[in-house]
Amino acid sequence: MLRTHTCGDLRISDVNIEVTLAGWVQRVRNKGGLIWVDLRDRYGITQLILEEGSTDESLLQKAAGLGREYVIQVSGTVIERSSKNDKLATGDIEIKVARLEVLNSSKVPPFIIEDETDGGEELRMKYRYLDLRRNVVRNKLQLRHRMMQETRKYMDAQNFIEVETPVLIKSTPEGARDFVVPSRVNPGEFYALPQSPQTFKQLLMVSGFDRYFQIVKCFRDEDLRADRQPEFTQIDCEMSFVSQEDILNTFEGLTKHLFKEVKGVDLAIVERMTFADAMKYYGNDKPDLRFDMKFVELNEVVKDKGFAIFDSAELVVGICAKGAASYTRKQIDALTDYVKRPQIGAKGLVYLKYNEDGSLKSSVDKFYSPEDLKTWADKFDATPGDLILVLSGEANPVRKQLSELRLKMGDELGLKDRNVFKPLWVIDFPLLEWDEDTQRYHAMHHPFTSPKTEDIPLLATDPGAVRANAYDLVINGVEIGGGSIRIHDRNTQQLMFRHLGFSEEEAQKQFGFLMEAFEYGAPPHGGIAFGFDRLCAIFGGSDSIRDFIAFPKNNSGRDVMIDSPSSIAEEQLKELSIALNILKEQKM
Amino acid sequence: MLRTHTCGDLRISDVNIEVTLAGWVQRVRNKGGLIWVDLRDRYGITQLILEEGSTDESLLQKAAGLGREYVIQVSGTVIERSSKNDKLATGDIEIKVARLEVLNSSKVPPFIIEDETDGGEELRMKYRYLDLRRNVVRNKLQLRHRMMQETRKYMDAQNFIEVETPVLIKSTPEGARDFVVPSRVNPGEFYALPQSPQTFKQLLMVSGFDRYFQIVKCFRDEDLRADRQPEFTQIDCEMSFVSQEDILNTFEGLTKHLFKEVKGVDLAIVERMTFADAMKYYGNDKPDLRFDMKFVELNEVVKDKGFAIFDSAELVVGICAKGAASYTRKQIDALTDYVKRPQIGAKGLVYLKYNEDGSLKSSVDKFYSPEDLKTWADKFDATPGDLILVLSGEANPVRKQLSELRLKMGDELGLKDRNVFKPLWVIDFPLLEWDEDTQRYHAMHHPFTSPKTEDIPLLATDPGAVRANAYDLVINGVEIGGGSIRIHDRNTQQLMFRHLGFSEEEAQKQFGFLMEAFEYGAPPHGGIAFGFDRLCAIFGGSDSIRDFIAFPKNNSGRDVMIDSPSSIAEEQLKELSIALNILKEQKM
Repeated sequence: MLRTHTCGDLRISDVNIEVTLAGWVQRVRNKGGLIWVDLRDRYGITQLILEEGSTDESLLQKAAGLGREYVIQVSGTVIERSSKNDKLATGDIEIKVARLEVLNSSKVPPFIIEDETDGGEELRMKYRYLDLRRNVVRNKLQLRHRMMQETRKYMDAQNFIEVETPVLIKSTPEGARDFVVPSRVNPGEFYALPQSPQTFKQLLMVSGFDRYFQIVKCFRDEDLRADRQPEFTQIDCEMSFVSQEDILNTFEGLTKHLFKEVKGVDLAIVERMTFADAMKYYGNDKPDLRFDMKFVELNEVVKDKGFAIFDSAELVVGICAKGAASYTRKQIDALTDYVKRPQIGAKGLVYLKYNEDGSLKSSVDKFYSPEDLKTWADKFDATPGDLILVLSGEANPVRKQLSELRLKMGDELGLKDRNVFKPLWVIDFPLLEWDEDTQRYHAMHHPFTSPKTEDIPLLATDPGAVRANAYDLVINGVEIGGGSIRIHDRNTQQLMFRHLGFSEEEAQKQFGFLMEAFEYGAPPHGGIAFGFDRLCAIFGGSDSIRDFIAFPKNNSGRDVMIDSPSSIAEEQLKELSIALNILKEQKM
Repeated sequence: MLRTHTCGDLRISDVNIEVTLAGWVQRVRNKGGLIWVDLRDRYGITQLILEEGSTDESLLQKAAGLGREYVIQVSGTVIERSSKNDKLATGDIEIKVARLEVLNSSKVPPFIIEDETDGGEELRMKYRYLDLRRNVVRNKLQLRHRMMQETRKYMDAQNFIEVETPVLIKSTPEGARDFVVPSRVNPGEFYALPQSPQTFKQLLMVSGFDRYFQIVKCFRDEDLRADRQPEFTQIDCEMSFVSQEDILNTFEGLTKHLFKEVKGVDLAIVERMTFADAMKYYGNDKPDLRFDMKFVELNEVVKDKGFAIFDSAELVVGICAKGAASYTRKQIDALTDYVKRPQIGAKGLVYLKYNEDGSLKSSVDKFYSPEDLKTWADKFDATPGDLILVLSGEANPVRKQLSELRLKMGDELGLKDRNVFKPLWVIDFPLLEWDEDTQRYHAMHHPFTSPKTEDIPLLATDPGAVRANAYDLVINGVEIGGGSIRIHDRNTQQLMFRHLGFSEEEAQKQFGFLMEAFEYGAPPHGGIAFGFDRLCAIFGGSDSIRDFIAFPKNNSGRDVMIDSPSSIAEEQLKELSIALNILKEQKM
């Protein structure tokens, strides 16, 4: 090794030993005949010291010539520091340098390599290898490493077998858009990259693997948003001979294990809520339970008082923001503007202040007496000091609008504590959802999800009402994982494809292998997949998954560091039996 | 859970408890009013018993109707068996069945699902999910799981950080053919799938990650052979501030850890051999050291005796097969035919038998006296009973030919014991190798490998003689891993590209990001990659990596189970801005 210790190793007990360290120059200070160098590596920072007189002149010159981010190797003696630095683990000692070698020099970096940097996002993406040198960034990837190791430890202890499923698979029309790979050996044919290893993990259950997991890259060629990446990582799991309850318990166990081992947090029991309740009380299938503000429906107390907007509304529903009665007119106007933004689309906002003095003041005093308003307040169990916010309109849209308002109030009132974790299982999802564009039902989860046995008759009469054996794990309003008990017999699977509008022929062409597998003794089975990038972000207290990916792509799917994607040689295209076919307007 | 125990759990101490099991019907026997069912799952086999009279009639009928591979759930009482089965861990007990439910039926499988099967390879590939149900096959994937977990355990304990590098990267002309992925968002541009994460792991070193590893899928669009797959798995590693010695020690440690934990084998110290010695003594850069048969060069003792073939040969070299003097004329003729096969290409084979009675008999007695032949035998330290086999010709080809003969003799004499493991580091590989086709030097390892400092001057005068800081780990004649100390400064890297025939412009276009990274404080670093599929095959005592891959592709790169690759919709091609361009002869 080019070092005897790392820059995080040495302590007061090491005084007087001879050591060799290697690392990056974080800073050089030069004062009163003394030169200090902060030497950095992944493990910490150690201070080096050179003194005029007691140190060789050429060595002093070398040290004075060091620039930021130079890579050096030094040998010397560990000595006690005169003024200790409590902020550093090595702060009790420094190294009296006897030898110094520059292993590599460095140009001036394009941005400052410290926890606080002056680099903009694009610049840091281009020089991602320098951004990764910052402790705050590298720590996120160390957290990810820890989470991977702990996930495997738990899964292995629970008898899950890690199996690598193929990356070069088959394109299917269901779901999001596939990335495809032209086959050279089979001209005109393509592989697809997996959006998930769904069918393979089900086949492993048919194979009797009993418990499978994998931490696996998946791919979706979607239009990118800030928190999406074309390639992302999943903790993918499947179990045989289980009911939904067994899966929830097993992965509640994984979640608790990770919180305990990685964050030292004892997670409370994971609550459960039906999809129907989540929509009714939070307007959202992934409610953030760090704060209350449950929806209260007001139809019965607001109707027939002459307020036409409420009278004509399918749903009048509100939330109670504890202690927000002090909101000014201006603040309430801002909330009104917020919910009226086109992305949210509310028509207006009604408020009711329950003042500290017990008086009630609303934006609809013209229509409602103080007694009426007190009835509202009582519905919310409101107390003096609270602010009630009410929306109205068609039930489904208004719930979504109120959900946005609830989250906004959570932000404004500081209720979204990054150090509080409220996990929740949302269960009993609908099996199907109606798609206006294609005018047919789509699988809400995917076509392999089983309907609840008691709801199967509804498939023929009221498909939208059929509930699935499907569940999501939500933490702090973020969907972390989702899964289902699968269909495991050919007839039900065929029925499902029929309801999803597949012709017999299409279903056979795309998924014939799976349906055939179901005829050779497929066990009852189910599983789950966790979005690993997002899980890491939650653990790291960040909203962006990009921070937790070593080499992420930008919003156009480009890696600006290596400049990819890029054009390829004509010869390569020919070998692959494809040609470019670029429309003129795309070229511009 | 649909079971209280697995089929491998129950023991004599469980007698009298009520249990519920679930699994596959391995066999049903029906004799003298008794029905036995062998119930199988991943964990074992448990015998079920139903008895006429003491069991409900409808239950008996259900049991009698069970077919192979039916999936059933049974409840009953654990009882002691009258005749124990020592071959089963559960062989002391059986289950007296009180309830039986068929969870799924099964058609008759296309081949027998037992350790010995009647299914041919193509059939087993098509129904891979049934082949995986066989214990011998699933055990190979359980071994792979174990090796993955133990690899991570070791690497984590050694402070390596597991980092996922991207799968959608950039196509480069160097090395094997890339698989490419058309980008929809960037028309006319392509991603490539990584042949290895080489540049990314080096960038992680520039980032100060210090120790990186990953168990990662890599891709090569090569013409397939039996032991190659278009997607394969690597244990990929890189370390900073190390010399070659540190890397060899660290990964010798990993190898020993795996042998100890996975196979219970205490591996001997890993020998080291230079590339030059490996070629000189074994004719091969991956010698199988389970047996000796070292090459002995005979030039000085065979020349000028009138045997023109030897006299005109650049090299006369042989091996001594201990105890093979009893080989018949027919056996030796077969060996001669073997080395003369076009794939090997020797002109002929000279033998010398050192008979048990001390006499010497050779195929060149006409030219050499018994005293001459005794001199040969002495060069080999041969003793009575040995057979000496000699080839001659141009040095390099003749060494390769003799290497083949040596391996053949190892087979014939039963010296390739699958339970003996002889690891070896081959070091000091040449940096460059001459390519006849392109009439230029290629990097033997890859363009990022550093030359030995003392050999750098030779780059200008005798490039083929420059040795690299490169090493391979070989076990039993199989290359398991390889790596090098890398170049870490821009100038040397540029020099290297120049020697490989890259123009300044090409080098900049393809690897500019890496050379730029070297200017911002790149530490000295090096690494290694292990072929994980092959490592598993060695551990599993198999020659084929395919057995150790859950869903392998066939020799045409097809997954015959899911029928991939396949054609994709015209609409998909259009979105990707590509068109098919299939030549007529390919279509036929």
